[in-house]
Amino acid sequence: MDNIFEQSLEFHERNKGKIEVRSKVPLDNKEALSLAYTPGVAEVSKRIAMNPEDAYRYTLKQNSIAVVSDGSAVLGLGNLGAKAAIPVMEGKAAIFKEFAGIDAFPICLDTQDTEKIIKTIKMISPVFGGINLEDISAPRCFEIERRLAEELDIPVMHDDQHGTATVVLAGLINSLKLRGTKKEDATVLINGVGAAGSAIAYILALYGFKNILLCDTHGLIYEGRDNLSDEKIKLSQITNKEKIKGSLEDGLKFSDIFIGVSKAGLLNADHIKMMKEQPIIFALANPTPEIMPDIAKGAGAFIYASGRSDFPNQVNNALVFPGIFRGLLDKRIKKINNEIFIKAAEALAGHNKNLSVDQILPDLYDKSIVDSIKNSF
Amino acid sequence: MDNIFEQSLEFHERNKGKIEVRSKVPLDNKEALSLAYTPGVAEVSKRIAMNPEDAYRYTLKQNSIAVVSDGSAVLGLGNLGAKAAIPVMEGKAAIFKEFAGIDAFPICLDTQDTEKIIKTIKMISPVFGGINLEDISAPRCFEIERRLAEELDIPVMHDDQHGTATVVLAGLINSLKLRGTKKEDATVLINGVGAAGSAIAYILALYGFKNILLCDTHGLIYEGRDNLSDEKIKLSQITNKEKIKGSLEDGLKFSDIFIGVSKAGLLNADHIKMMKEQPIIFALANPTPEIMPDIAKGAGAFIYASGRSDFPNQVNNALVFPGIFRGLLDKRIKKINNEIFIKAAEALAGHNKNLSVDQILPDLYDKSIVDSIKNSF
Repeated sequence: MDNIFEQSLEFHERNKGKIEVRSKVPLDNKEALSLAYTPGVAEVSKRIAMNPEDAYRYTLKQNSIAVVSDGSAVLGLGNLGAKAAIPVMEGKAAIFKEFAGIDAFPICLDTQDTEKIIKTIKMISPVFGGINLEDISAPRCFEIERRLAEELDIPVMHDDQHGTATVVLAGLINSLKLRGTKKEDATVLINGVGAAGSAIAYILALYGFKNILLCDTHGLIYEGRDNLSDEKIKLSQITNKEKIKGSLEDGLKFSDIFIGVSKAGLLNADHIKMMKEQPIIFALANPTPEIMPDIAKGAGAFIYASGRSDFPNQVNNALVFPGIFRGLLDKRIKKINNEIFIKAAEALAGHNKNLSVDQILPDLYDKSIVDSIKNSF
Repeated sequence: MDNIFEQSLEFHERNKGKIEVRSKVPLDNKEALSLAYTPGVAEVSKRIAMNPEDAYRYTLKQNSIAVVSDGSAVLGLGNLGAKAAIPVMEGKAAIFKEFAGIDAFPICLDTQDTEKIIKTIKMISPVFGGINLEDISAPRCFEIERRLAEELDIPVMHDDQHGTATVVLAGLINSLKLRGTKKEDATVLINGVGAAGSAIAYILALYGFKNILLCDTHGLIYEGRDNLSDEKIKLSQITNKEKIKGSLEDGLKFSDIFIGVSKAGLLNADHIKMMKEQPIIFALANPTPEIMPDIAKGAGAFIYASGRSDFPNQVNNALVFPGIFRGLLDKRIKKINNEIFIKAAEALAGHNKNLSVDQILPDLYDKSIVDSIKNSF
């Protein structure tokens, strides 16, 4: 076992988890308790009963979100169940506070049924100002997000889709700038058409990329192909206009950009060499990328990015979700739209003042990113 | 409007609610994030997937509870709805941390349907080590608590029932000691047969009180009376063995002890005078008691207690629930039983080293109460 894994187990056990719930106010004497609890709180409850919107004025709702998972797609590890999702959601909640001052609480659901997930989240929504869906597998995640966005009066975002799509778009904006290529002229191949791959395709199409190829386990996706889910049928209508057929390799030949949200070790040097000159490689499989940086660079990659913190160009959702939710909560936005993600991506790309092939995105620990994103929409 | 109510509104608005969710671990550099989040956390998730009990070892589950309400019985104010319950549940969560170091999160449910409440709580249970039900009206609260206790593998306690019953029993143990009366010889009249009144009757019967009278809006309860719910039929079988019939007044004539969990201003001096000599009066209606202390004492009450912090002898659940849940979590007890409440009541009564008619219970701000209760079961 890797040393980091041993260390992480020990770290989690020693710290007894990672987050805590604390009082922001004193409670250690009669006067304090009579303000924060009975009898004073009775008046606050009455006000909110008369005007439910006042929950935003007087309670944690103004700054709280639920980080919700059903444990069906935990990290890149697959369907590990609700309890195995807890440490990931807890880590995410910790990041929300550290990066954006948001009070996020992990909710791990003891069901993987679409309708039950939707009902449960609706039932617990009153205390939250937003819902961050996480690590819920496709295609259920699409229906769950769409329905909740329709039926709730607080913003709902599936981070594996839109957080990923937003940071990828930001990375591509800067990569193309460095390569001197217009988005309209670039061909992008996205390998892996789950939650992340779908959302990346949608946001790139909306942003103005004209040539997008998608590849799943059956090969390139084109309109009319066999083995297309409803979601993929929709995607086939906005991608691959020339109906290129065949395997991943058949698509790579036409591509300037490879975005992998798929499997470890899928690409080798020959794959890079068959692409257009100076290809841009986003190898985002976690924790092991589709191809390692030295191999990709050695085979001619102009830019290499991955999800890894130990390689240059880490494409990490944590660059995006704190700022998006900070903005949603502060502006009390009730419905998210793709315009928000595009503006956030442009803001994130523009935030990077030290642009180079080894630094296409700002540093993750730059606390001012949150403000740049929040102020962009 | 009372000054305390104005102050409390201002206090809640200024503090933007009362609780926050924070990271207990550093997250401000690459190494920290790789331990707390990816890639390190992947190993923690895998361990828990193999052995779900390890959620207690590596996550917040070991120290977290949900404070759950449907807003149907908010304080003494009635059915104000889910959002109006938020400030109360948030206050309770703050008290859990302040008094017992427990990470409690408020969950306010957008339903008052028994089955939906049960289902929702089961669905969100994986991340919690216990469930504190709160401000859910009778009779739904009985079914909800019973079913959840059966169906979940974490402890479930409805505080309005058992927290109240436990602190009342503790207060009575010391009151009878001061009065020199044995529990077997005392007649107790409980006025109000909702969540609290029922639970008080059960715990007193189990503890060994032989003469318990219950009074609802139709008068004294006896076996075979009209207008008895299922819950009251059960209670009629363990109380009022002599089948005394009639009004509150008809019961008071026989009573040494009055426990009011009913309505403001229900009693006057004449009521106190018709009771046995040196009566013990627990006037627990909130925020305004059934009778004020000066009137009760003036009419001959030996001991007067209420829910108020500005009168002597505050009978407050906060004396009980932090220690009970601290013990449940530390001992990893999966099912609660009445033995736990009785032991906790005895421990709370015994914790008071300055026993007097104006101090039947320990001081609420005595932080060592939690340990006394926790170590009692």
